[in-house]
Amino acid sequence: MQDSKDRTETAERASVDGISRRRLLGTAGAVGAGGLVLGAAGGAAGYAAASPDAPAALSTVGSTEVAWGGAHQPGILQPLQARGHLIAFDLAPGAGRKEAAALLKRWSATARRLMKGGGSDAAVARDAGPSSLTVTFGFGRTFFSRTGLEKQRPGALDPLPPFSSDQVDPRRSEGDLWVQIGADDALVAFDALRAVQKDAGQAAKVRWQMNGFNRSPGATAEPMTARNLMGQVDGTNNPKPSEPDFDRRIFVPDSGADPAWMAGGSYAVVRRIRMLLDDWDKLALDAQEKVIGRRKSDGAPLTGGTETTEPELDKVGADGKVVIPLDAHARISRPDQNGGAAMLRRPFSYHDGIAADGTPDAGLLFICWQADPLRGFIPVQRKLDRGDALSAFIRHESSGLYAVPGGPGEGEYVGQRLLEG
Amino acid sequence: MQDSKDRTETAERASVDGISRRRLLGTAGAVGAGGLVLGAAGGAAGYAAASPDAPAALSTVGSTEVAWGGAHQPGILQPLQARGHLIAFDLAPGAGRKEAAALLKRWSATARRLMKGGGSDAAVARDAGPSSLTVTFGFGRTFFSRTGLEKQRPGALDPLPPFSSDQVDPRRSEGDLWVQIGADDALVAFDALRAVQKDAGQAAKVRWQMNGFNRSPGATAEPMTARNLMGQVDGTNNPKPSEPDFDRRIFVPDSGADPAWMAGGSYAVVRRIRMLLDDWDKLALDAQEKVIGRRKSDGAPLTGGTETTEPELDKVGADGKVVIPLDAHARISRPDQNGGAAMLRRPFSYHDGIAADGTPDAGLLFICWQADPLRGFIPVQRKLDRGDALSAFIRHESSGLYAVPGGPGEGEYVGQRLLEG
Repeated sequence: MQDSKDRTETAERASVDGISRRRLLGTAGAVGAGGLVLGAAGGAAGYAAASPDAPAALSTVGSTEVAWGGAHQPGILQPLQARGHLIAFDLAPGAGRKEAAALLKRWSATARRLMKGGGSDAAVARDAGPSSLTVTFGFGRTFFSRTGLEKQRPGALDPLPPFSSDQVDPRRSEGDLWVQIGADDALVAFDALRAVQKDAGQAAKVRWQMNGFNRSPGATAEPMTARNLMGQVDGTNNPKPSEPDFDRRIFVPDSGADPAWMAGGSYAVVRRIRMLLDDWDKLALDAQEKVIGRRKSDGAPLTGGTETTEPELDKVGADGKVVIPLDAHARISRPDQNGGAAMLRRPFSYHDGIAADGTPDAGLLFICWQADPLRGFIPVQRKLDRGDALSAFIRHESSGLYAVPGGPGEGEYVGQRLLEG
Repeated sequence: MQDSKDRTETAERASVDGISRRRLLGTAGAVGAGGLVLGAAGGAAGYAAASPDAPAALSTVGSTEVAWGGAHQPGILQPLQARGHLIAFDLAPGAGRKEAAALLKRWSATARRLMKGGGSDAAVARDAGPSSLTVTFGFGRTFFSRTGLEKQRPGALDPLPPFSSDQVDPRRSEGDLWVQIGADDALVAFDALRAVQKDAGQAAKVRWQMNGFNRSPGATAEPMTARNLMGQVDGTNNPKPSEPDFDRRIFVPDSGADPAWMAGGSYAVVRRIRMLLDDWDKLALDAQEKVIGRRKSDGAPLTGGTETTEPELDKVGADGKVVIPLDAHARISRPDQNGGAAMLRRPFSYHDGIAADGTPDAGLLFICWQADPLRGFIPVQRKLDRGDALSAFIRHESSGLYAVPGGPGEGEYVGQRLLEG
């Protein structure tokens, strides 16, 4: 692991929503911009895969290290990880700005340490490498009044409008503070979750906590866009970091309407979206494909081509109807149908066993990132809420909106510009 | 994936409780005994790891295929998988032997198909390789009366004795039928779980269902014994398949006290063991080590050496006391302290978020395998129940005991010898 650190690897940011191809930059110490991934397996420095004695069986699962610090916090631009935890806290009664600053300082130190690998004193992650661990911190709307920082509260944190398909449980929603943990190893992720909880100490109490997952690295023969628990290819139309307006859409600029402490930050909308899988699975394949507007097998639009082919939205079939139905999810959620709104979706699937009614308690921990929820999530969700054929098969069960500041500078902790500003 | 199938790989059965080293046998088609793993990554046939463009970044996570059929069912001798599901069913009212036989036939066909990779029609696992998927089927005590097969019920399925540390929830215990699913990819495992549930149709209803996990392949630099959520190295003393009496201890012999249909089978004891992690983490390191009798860092006995060094049970320290306390878990659970009792432990960790009392709902899905629970689990647990220092930090919350028949022969389904015997 040590040997491999002199090589620096970065995620080719074009495919953050799938198992991303990474490009070896061959440059050392190129830390600075968010999204950098340190460390790579190669030769004897690689971590052992399941079959260490087989040829070429090395894997980067354990050895991949994500850089702490830089323009953006980790956990936004990195490839989806196999395991994720979301946890929200409320400040304890009596805890204010001072206690919050001390907590963010502890959390930042813990995140930086654990992201290098080896885990906490609890030893759950001992022996394991960094395993692409990321820890990301955000502030909810209620944080600002509780800390006397109302004047620093971004307007972007105004409550989301209600949507008719919401069945939101407030006990699993919002919260003063939000932490997102992701790693390619479940014990590394769990260890980080426990460490974050321990750091909270008497300063903050857990409000809610959720677990999620994605495909394991290497499960597919080549990197592919993720699938969700409905079996759909999910993430094809995610904005690409190579697009010229990507940064502007996803990250808060240095100057503008947002408070200065949010420069380089992003707003995260977090929704626990239950999938009504028993109902979904009763639909025939062609009915499912009409709901989505894409083929299930490969994610191609129903008008043909491959996953990345542009759908022909006006194409009419032999029955005189548009091939991609007017209420198809893929049609309604397209950015070009929503005034160019763009959000970067980076979800985890979740599965919490079987609910009291016998149906699977499973679906998507939807997480999307944007510079402005009023131009990202809200207009798209408003449109979906009115006429998305998928609505009958999903249920938004929780909701959170968080201001996630930019990455900390050298010697800084996350949120320092807010808390000591 | 296809290219790689002409090589056959088997788990070196010596380390089933860790991330196992596997030995390339170099022989083709050596299917027959349980525990065989088909398929290996190598050269261009390998599956992509997280960094496909990096040198030697191939991984066997997706491409590893476990053989269906043979002397034993899969899921007993294979290395621990990163993701697991346990699910128990009760036969529906009115369903009997005929419906059970049809169900086992459907389940066997599904397991055989899915273990080759590519997933079910639901497409959740499409694109992914077999990912070491195993599906294992067992019968609970109540199955036999409900199917008129009382005479075929093994005596080994007599109820476990009550233990004083049990706080068992009957709704999450036992069941007519039990299925264990394991895979190194969470979507592959979930797809198999859903397929098994769909196959149940009107014949059986879900009684309980639990999710678990282990380390990802490649998370550690070299294969190591697993750690549990207490941070302890867990599995050091597991019996080794290389030991001469391994088969006799773990698998039911062709002739003996058991019914003939159980030949090659094994009995699984399944316990959801909650770990009281908040209490545990309050203990200082040396206090934790005295509870276990081993060092937390590397699992070596407190009397010195390495993980595999024999503990010196009589060694006395400067304080005049035995170095490994009399109530240390490692002392009490040693097979040689229990008349040579042996069970093969092959657990998953679990984490179901935060319980109503604010503590983590996390611990171990303990699964152990033995030819005879009266000589395996029961004597060890009885001893632990009386004086194990670890008892204060764990709680047995559910319990199941299942007869898991041997692997199906060519053209057979699991349990056919019972159901058509």
